[in-house]
Amino acid sequence: MLTDDTINRVVRAALDEDAPWGDITSDLLVPAEATATGSLVAREPGVLSGVRTLRATSAAVDPALRVTVHVTDGEHFDVGDTIATLSGSARSILRAERVALNLMQRLSGIATLTARYVSLVKGTSARIVDTRKTTPGLRALERDAVRSGGGYNHRFSLSDAVLAKDNHLAVLAASGEHALTATLKHARSQISHTTHFEVEVDRIDQIEAVLAAGVDTIMLDNFALDELRAGVAMIDGRALVEASGNITLETVADVARTGVNLISVGGLTHGVRALDLGLDFAAPLGRP
Amino acid sequence: MLTDDTINRVVRAALDEDAPWGDITSDLLVPAEATATGSLVAREPGVLSGVRTLRATSAAVDPALRVTVHVTDGEHFDVGDTIATLSGSARSILRAERVALNLMQRLSGIATLTARYVSLVKGTSARIVDTRKTTPGLRALERDAVRSGGGYNHRFSLSDAVLAKDNHLAVLAASGEHALTATLKHARSQISHTTHFEVEVDRIDQIEAVLAAGVDTIMLDNFALDELRAGVAMIDGRALVEASGNITLETVADVARTGVNLISVGGLTHGVRALDLGLDFAAPLGRP
Amino acid sequence: MLTDDTINRVVRAALDEDAPWGDITSDLLVPAEATATGSLVAREPGVLSGVRTLRATSAAVDPALRVTVHVTDGEHFDVGDTIATLSGSARSILRAERVALNLMQRLSGIATLTARYVSLVKGTSARIVDTRKTTPGLRALERDAVRSGGGYNHRFSLSDAVLAKDNHLAVLAASGEHALTATLKHARSQISHTTHFEVEVDRIDQIEAVLAAGVDTIMLDNFALDELRAGVAMIDGRALVEASGNITLETVADVARTGVNLISVGGLTHGVRALDLGLDFAAPLGRP
Amino acid sequence: MLTDDTINRVVRAALDEDAPWGDITSDLLVPAEATATGSLVAREPGVLSGVRTLRATSAAVDPALRVTVHVTDGEHFDVGDTIATLSGSARSILRAERVALNLMQRLSGIATLTARYVSLVKGTSARIVDTRKTTPGLRALERDAVRSGGGYNHRFSLSDAVLAKDNHLAVLAASGEHALTATLKHARSQISHTTHFEVEVDRIDQIEAVLAAGVDTIMLDNFALDELRAGVAMIDGRALVEASGNITLETVADVARTGVNLISVGGLTHGVRALDLGLDFAAPLGRP
Amino acid sequence: MLTDDTINRVVRAALDEDAPWGDITSDLLVPAEATATGSLVAREPGVLSGVRTLRATSAAVDPALRVTVHVTDGEHFDVGDTIATLSGSARSILRAERVALNLMQRLSGIATLTARYVSLVKGTSARIVDTRKTTPGLRALERDAVRSGGGYNHRFSLSDAVLAKDNHLAVLAASGEHALTATLKHARSQISHTTHFEVEVDRIDQIEAVLAAGVDTIMLDNFALDELRAGVAMIDGRALVEASGNITLETVADVARTGVNLISVGGLTHGVRALDLGLDFAAPLGRP
Amino acid sequence: MLTDDTINRVVRAALDEDAPWGDITSDLLVPAEATATGSLVAREPGVLSGVRTLRATSAAVDPALRVTVHVTDGEHFDVGDTIATLSGSARSILRAERVALNLMQRLSGIATLTARYVSLVKGTSARIVDTRKTTPGLRALERDAVRSGGGYNHRFSLSDAVLAKDNHLAVLAASGEHALTATLKHARSQISHTTHFEVEVDRIDQIEAVLAAGVDTIMLDNFALDELRAGVAMIDGRALVEASGNITLETVADVARTGVNLISVGGLTHGVRALDLGLDFAAPLGRP
Repeated sequence: MLTDDTINRVVRAALDEDAPWGDITSDLLVPAEATATGSLVAREPGVLSGVRTLRATSAAVDPALRVTVHVTDGEHFDVGDTIATLSGSARSILRAERVALNLMQRLSGIATLTARYVSLVKGTSARIVDTRKTTPGLRALERDAVRSGGGYNHRFSLSDAVLAKDNHLAVLAASGEHALTATLKHARSQISHTTHFEVEVDRIDQIEAVLAAGVDTIMLDNFALDELRAGVAMIDGRALVEASGNITLETVADVARTGVNLISVGGLTHGVRALDLGLDFAAPLGRP
Repeated sequence: MLTDDTINRVVRAALDEDAPWGDITSDLLVPAEATATGSLVAREPGVLSGVRTLRATSAAVDPALRVTVHVTDGEHFDVGDTIATLSGSARSILRAERVALNLMQRLSGIATLTARYVSLVKGTSARIVDTRKTTPGLRALERDAVRSGGGYNHRFSLSDAVLAKDNHLAVLAASGEHALTATLKHARSQISHTTHFEVEVDRIDQIEAVLAAGVDTIMLDNFALDELRAGVAMIDGRALVEASGNITLETVADVARTGVNLISVGGLTHGVRALDLGLDFAAPLGRP
Repeated sequence: MLTDDTINRVVRAALDEDAPWGDITSDLLVPAEATATGSLVAREPGVLSGVRTLRATSAAVDPALRVTVHVTDGEHFDVGDTIATLSGSARSILRAERVALNLMQRLSGIATLTARYVSLVKGTSARIVDTRKTTPGLRALERDAVRSGGGYNHRFSLSDAVLAKDNHLAVLAASGEHALTATLKHARSQISHTTHFEVEVDRIDQIEAVLAAGVDTIMLDNFALDELRAGVAMIDGRALVEASGNITLETVADVARTGVNLISVGGLTHGVRALDLGLDFAAPLGRP
Repeated sequence: MLTDDTINRVVRAALDEDAPWGDITSDLLVPAEATATGSLVAREPGVLSGVRTLRATSAAVDPALRVTVHVTDGEHFDVGDTIATLSGSARSILRAERVALNLMQRLSGIATLTARYVSLVKGTSARIVDTRKTTPGLRALERDAVRSGGGYNHRFSLSDAVLAKDNHLAVLAASGEHALTATLKHARSQISHTTHFEVEVDRIDQIEAVLAAGVDTIMLDNFALDELRAGVAMIDGRALVEASGNITLETVADVARTGVNLISVGGLTHGVRALDLGLDFAAPLGRP
Repeated sequence: MLTDDTINRVVRAALDEDAPWGDITSDLLVPAEATATGSLVAREPGVLSGVRTLRATSAAVDPALRVTVHVTDGEHFDVGDTIATLSGSARSILRAERVALNLMQRLSGIATLTARYVSLVKGTSARIVDTRKTTPGLRALERDAVRSGGGYNHRFSLSDAVLAKDNHLAVLAASGEHALTATLKHARSQISHTTHFEVEVDRIDQIEAVLAAGVDTIMLDNFALDELRAGVAMIDGRALVEASGNITLETVADVARTGVNLISVGGLTHGVRALDLGLDFAAPLGRP
Repeated sequence: MLTDDTINRVVRAALDEDAPWGDITSDLLVPAEATATGSLVAREPGVLSGVRTLRATSAAVDPALRVTVHVTDGEHFDVGDTIATLSGSARSILRAERVALNLMQRLSGIATLTARYVSLVKGTSARIVDTRKTTPGLRALERDAVRSGGGYNHRFSLSDAVLAKDNHLAVLAASGEHALTATLKHARSQISHTTHFEVEVDRIDQIEAVLAAGVDTIMLDNFALDELRAGVAMIDGRALVEASGNITLETVADVARTGVNLISVGGLTHGVRALDLGLDFAAPLGRP
């Protein structure tokens, strides 16, 4: 989940980064008492995420700014739609503008891309889930954007679920450890009962050894479609099945139809382009 | 400039975000004494940026990790090139992997895109410069990536240079302030002699009034090519000329040939895709 | 898991709290070059936890102090046993003494009490698990102490697992929400596949509705022994079973024999007494 | 003294520790608009401490929560007494519950134990005072709890008073320093006139040398009752006298009757058990 | 510019430094409900700076304190003038008093001294500018005080403008680098177009080489008056001219008449004495 | 006392303030491998304080810099004396220069002024003590500088000693509280036995009432010399006597001869001028 504390921390750091000792231009050129109204307008269609970052930025800059929201997180909008309006001190709106846009553009880009993936798997039992390929410092916000787009989250971090990948298994093997099943079984016995246990396999012949250890989810990494189908059949409900590895908008529907439960897409947060949103000032500006 | 302090702050926050209470998978499955060698390999061609973030991540996780760098910031690489190798504790390499990749992929994406813009203006007097459309929290790193790609930086923030935009001029007008030249002249007289003074104009007929105030740079925003040429001629060396507004890889060469000094491209940091880099583990792994 | 970062944060804050502007007594009375050897000695028997806090305190005060550890986390010790020795600067040892003792005494108290519970359920399939009744600021260390005593951890916090308690169900009911099964099912469908889902019930007749929603663990709160047995039989492996509520050293063995998988004991961290450890200085002290 | 800043720092860190990314259970199961009233009820008798931590926790979670306090710090309460009530958002009350209880239970445990010691020395001139054996991070709160119980505080830390103990004197001796009186006299001449100067002695024959140096307090460590009486007579008002060392509820009254001014009891904060307090929700819950 | 964030950071740190665990005297002796009115009175004449620090200190201590300001930043005041009054809780006023005075006395000392320099150069084209010789931690406030006194700021820090001094040129020479002009020209080509480029020269014969590189400002360090005149003539408007080096109240007018644009005076912040301001309590005090 | 932690916090903040994103001049103009030697030279005579800040600044910038100290804290030096030398990376020395000088100049100014006061009271029993009139953020360093000059410290802050001033007594009176003696006696009974209790009086006829309450120190504020003598006689060793109020270099010797124990001088830290120290670079510079 995304807490207000997290949003406020990100927003305050961003505001500080964007004007460590104030906005010298507005202080020189914009009278302190000038007021304005700015409209956050979509320059391309998409799915929104980040309304709370807009509110938090506005409040951090100037609690007296009024924010009216017309589109909320998870809603679709079209070119030219007004997403929100800010009104109040002109200096405050100019100060908040870039930080709010930088955050909302990126988050809405993620929500929009996620929504495209989600729409492509509609009717199947597959969830679209994110990965740890997030922007450093923004993970909680980007995970929230994935949810805005209709996707689901995978584990938050290395600390809150076990996910044994090829590298771990390789190290185990090279280290001369016990057979895979025994090792995984022992690992499982060590962790809290609330900790999810997932293992990645590269080949279909690894599945039985992993299942025998009692895992919650098996990730089938870079499997061809027929291998995925075979994997799903072999696992047969004894664990959740996650498909992973270079899944794109072109391939996701076919992958979903193999019967997997989860499709993780690094590109949701990694390969995403910021969406084009802008702030338009209404004319004429008033005075208080 | 990008200081080690800034890099370390970003890297430590990212490591903490990625494993607030440790990597439970490696602690369960990878023996503490297992060693490994991981190669950072390019999965697509590009221009590198972020070697210092790799070193900082590695040092923050485990000062005993050895980092060997084969490609440095600003250098081109090809698919399959090994950019760097890490060797030492397997647990440490796994812990550093995602954070280092998330940073380097984004920064190298920026450097690569910047380099494409820079190559398109080669032979002209125009510099490619960045904007404030950066990822919140990563501005100093992303500006460094622009320099890795051969671009230049614009002002760092709202605090270190004056840049009067349409919105400022609009507020001035609406507030019934003095004529533009007088206002700008007065503003200039208030600031430190070390503060750069730049003004954005939307129409060619605004240029003379701005020039009369004595500015360092005039930004011609969303000017057509012939308007840019006319603007450059009119300004005639009395100020630097910056072209701005929806400049793309398709249009940048033509813009550069109009004689402008600076071309600012928000897309360098805003519309960029992370470059695909991966970490490959060598087999077999040894023990100390 | 307990990371070095967490330990260091706690230790540094404790050292700062214990001497915000230095140890004026030692600075006045102990020559800067005086050396000493201090032995950490058990004044009562127990199970150790906190060796890493001892090392961290020592290193934070003076990296030149030498720490030799004779008993490690999870090991039993007797009255008079020397747990560790510190040698080096006398001022540094006096500076580290109280902080190290305050931490290790509390953590070893937890490990010792946990070990008593664990020994009482030996031979059954029940795990002893902790709760959120921990000392504010020390949760990660106290959870580690529970593991030192042979216990297991429950969820770390409100953020990393769902645990629906009587109050949640009460609020649901009062709010006129849908039937329990439907509500829990819907909730489960919203969360990440890696998030554990546990529900507390107060009466045996609530179990079927909860099971029907598909939960990972059912907590039987304040059940009598025969109710626990009936609950275990009814659940029959379809979920883990956790016994909870006023379980003491007197009752834990009987509870474990009902067949529950987990027994949560708030008293492990809540009702625990610090164990008596002391630091004895060897005589005579030397000079470098 | 205990400042609001200190309380807020502890409370915010505890809330963050208890839900770093939110309370996922309440967010799933408790409607945002549901309201509730929770009563903080005593499950055993005692003396209260920590009302300000309750208010601070409540305010940090949700400034709109209403807190009504029925018992204040230092007051006795009985089993079943309602100490305070919280009303407002059900989610907010559930979020604040554990942190507030964890703090108040520990602090009230300290106040209750202190009050028992204090009542045992009533009628004598002896004060019960605390020590540095406090929980790392909570010293200022625990000292306040000692005052709630009618006790007094000793020095806050190593920085604000001199307390020369056996180890210091041992180091001095071993280092071949001047005679004890001269050394203490010199030390006293170095410090601020506002710094209290106390010296611990182990044997009655050390007293005269210490008194001759001009000290504020002499601590008689581990003295038998008749030795304490002899010490008090020998010092005869020339310094305050503090008894120290394994003083328990069984022995404290006899110690107080020897005429000492101060009795320091490490167990006030070190050997204390958290008091059993609970939060009961009223039914039925309403909606706003 | 001086932001509220900066002021608040300084004020909060100062309040914490001045009373880390509260004001024990007022808590003992001043009833919580006692009210008072304190007048900030000038004990010597001067120019004010720091009204915002007074407001921030008052608000940080107690938002209910009322602050009435009679003299604002930049205004002259005389002995005995009341600069501001605080009214409200007596405890709060006593808590804020020392921190507010310590800040305002220093800042007003700077403004007063600056105003003396500024008045001495009236009628010339020279600006009085500050240097980096500021109190660590207070630079932004002290720069603001210089502006209160009618002075101007030089660069904020090493990061926001190039200022090549004798030491830099010495290092260059010693390192066998290219000729001065070439080196400076290359340096200039590397930096952002918004970065001011200034070079210090010690001798008049260095000026041409520096001018040839295209610099924004030339600093003439420790030049005699006739050398300054010669330098101004030689530069002839091709760059700004800054005089620097041991300029005092005695010499500044003559320096200004040489035609330089800027006169930097380290003593504005470095050699300044705090101005004598005091807080007088009105009698009799009331109760709420 | 002044801890390394405090020094490092101040130094790091100052370095960050002086170059938030690096020293762009040195990075452009000084080769990374150039080395230099800088001598810290006295431009006027004085008493040194701040050697530890020099070492800390140097270490924070570059642990490889070598610092050789020729004059230590508390020692007198003459014009032209070399206080310390730094050698190593030229960039690092240039980076450390201003911060180290800004700190040492101020601290040595305080030590020098204190030493003048101390020499004037030599032969009397009076100590020169400081006040809370220190630079916000630098109190611990400035108190250390007072000790370097041979002075003593008063209480550190409002938290560590009681000092009842005229304002407190005024509030008491106005609030209709009990008689002065009773109030002070009650206050004394509330505080820790380690807390110093001092009361300021304005008139000689207040002394007996204060003495009767049992105080540690009486401050005679703004007493004429004969009043001071009378006060000392009246108090007659029953409490320490502190003279306070506008004591200058001209009057301090006479005040000391009245027999007071303490003379507090706000001007030690409040009215002090930074001492002139400079950093001279040796020529020619070498390369590694």
